[in-house]
Amino acid sequence: MAYTTSSHKLLFRQLFEKESSTYTYLLADVSHPDKPALLIDPVDKTVERDLSLVKELGLKLIYAMNTHVHADHVTGTGLIKTKVPGVKSVISKASNSKADVLIDAGDKIHFGDLFLEVRPTPGHTLGCVSYVTGDGPDQPQPRMAFTGDAVLIRGCGRTDFQIFTLPKDTLIYPAHDYKGFTVSTVGEEMLYNPRLTKDEEGFKNIMENLNLPYPKMIDIAVPANLVCGLQDLSAKPVEATSK
Amino acid sequence: MAYTTSSHKLLFRQLFEKESSTYTYLLADVSHPDKPALLIDPVDKTVERDLSLVKELGLKLIYAMNTHVHADHVTGTGLIKTKVPGVKSVISKASNSKADVLIDAGDKIHFGDLFLEVRPTPGHTLGCVSYVTGDGPDQPQPRMAFTGDAVLIRGCGRTDFQIFTLPKDTLIYPAHDYKGFTVSTVGEEMLYNPRLTKDEEGFKNIMENLNLPYPKMIDIAVPANLVCGLQDLSAKPVEATSK
Ligand SMILES: [Fe+2]
Ligand SMILES: [Fe+2]
Repeated sequence: MAYTTSSHKLLFRQLFEKESSTYTYLLADVSHPDKPALLIDPVDKTVERDLSLVKELGLKLIYAMNTHVHADHVTGTGLIKTKVPGVKSVISKASNSKADVLIDAGDKIHFGDLFLEVRPTPGHTLGCVSYVTGDGPDQPQPRMAFTGDAVLIRGCGRTDFQIFTLPKDTLIYPAHDYKGFTVSTVGEEMLYNPRLTKDEEGFKNIMENLNLPYPKMIDIAVPANLVCGLQDLSAKPVEATSK
Repeated sequence: MAYTTSSHKLLFRQLFEKESSTYTYLLADVSHPDKPALLIDPVDKTVERDLSLVKELGLKLIYAMNTHVHADHVTGTGLIKTKVPGVKSVISKASNSKADVLIDAGDKIHFGDLFLEVRPTPGHTLGCVSYVTGDGPDQPQPRMAFTGDAVLIRGCGRTDFQIFTLPKDTLIYPAHDYKGFTVSTVGEEMLYNPRLTKDEEGFKNIMENLNLPYPKMIDIAVPANLVCGLQDLSAKPVEATSK
């Protein structure tokens, strides 16, 4: 079992936004002459940082993607689109949001020779998807799953068999972490995630007794994120083209 | 240039402590039957989290190491020693601190088939060292440098040639990050670190004009860290054995 991802093509960076404890992920194929890149779950407040890094590394950003309609922060995808012409925003069709590319279960998102697969992981929100690196000789090994809020380290949104049928060494990169963890594996979460090690009854019990406070950003974040963060940035209509 | 570390032996985890923005690193040789492990720069407040993870992953913690005498948080090494018998604390001889193992330039710290090299990187404090993964067929490729406060991403403690003579693809893992970066490379910092791209005069100027506030934890943290966090945990004397 390998605990680190090996790939001669992939450039990978995990980036943290402290206020909402959100992870943004930068992936690029650096073996391709264009160095095409994508950002998963960018946050509006850290767009400047993310775009400087993209520039410094000589990458060409092509996609700004969301795993779901976030309730705790405003997505950076709208702001990115105004700053980098040509970048396409991506979200699931099932999220009922506006974006340039509306993806569905099984769709593939290509960047250079690398690609991500779309796996529906509804629960936290209806349109939640996970993005999983491809399977194949050129693709990163072990695979990497960007699970959004569907699976958090040692505390997930819900049990999700779309993720837990992946190989045990698949690396799990969540959208958030509140305890300082940066990564886990499918095997590890199957053993130690408190919500996965319970049966259905036990799981329902945990969820009903969480007593979560009303998310402080929800009234601002959700309406903005339904239009991919473009609400107050410009009056330009967003082209929603389903692939 | 590879941007991810590849090793079939290494288990690697980066862990974050939000209050002091400190990174703790867990490394283990999982190919070895004992799965010997070490922690670099553990923080007292997150010792429970770190030790649970060590236990869940079935590792045997053998070293709790510091890159330097921290001024911004209390090291977790003292607390770890009281909780896990047999763990040895490690710090540099030049730091004038107490620890079980006092290391010097060029020393090697072995865990299973893997090892770290000690590189002196004084500046931030006199006894600052960086720990760099070994060079060899079994060792992680690219190499990984745990630079403490000597090199921070896009803003270092000082220019340090002990680090900047390493291969350009060497991954840099700092003790802190305040902007949400998790990793960089030697090549990248040589190009974009604002304190490295200046000449000596320019660098002095930046340092003199930082106007840093008096570190809020310094009066608690430094005396505690000079005895590796054992100040108020027990009256037991700490055995300081130089290798
Ligand atoms: Fe979220
Ligand atoms: Fe420090």
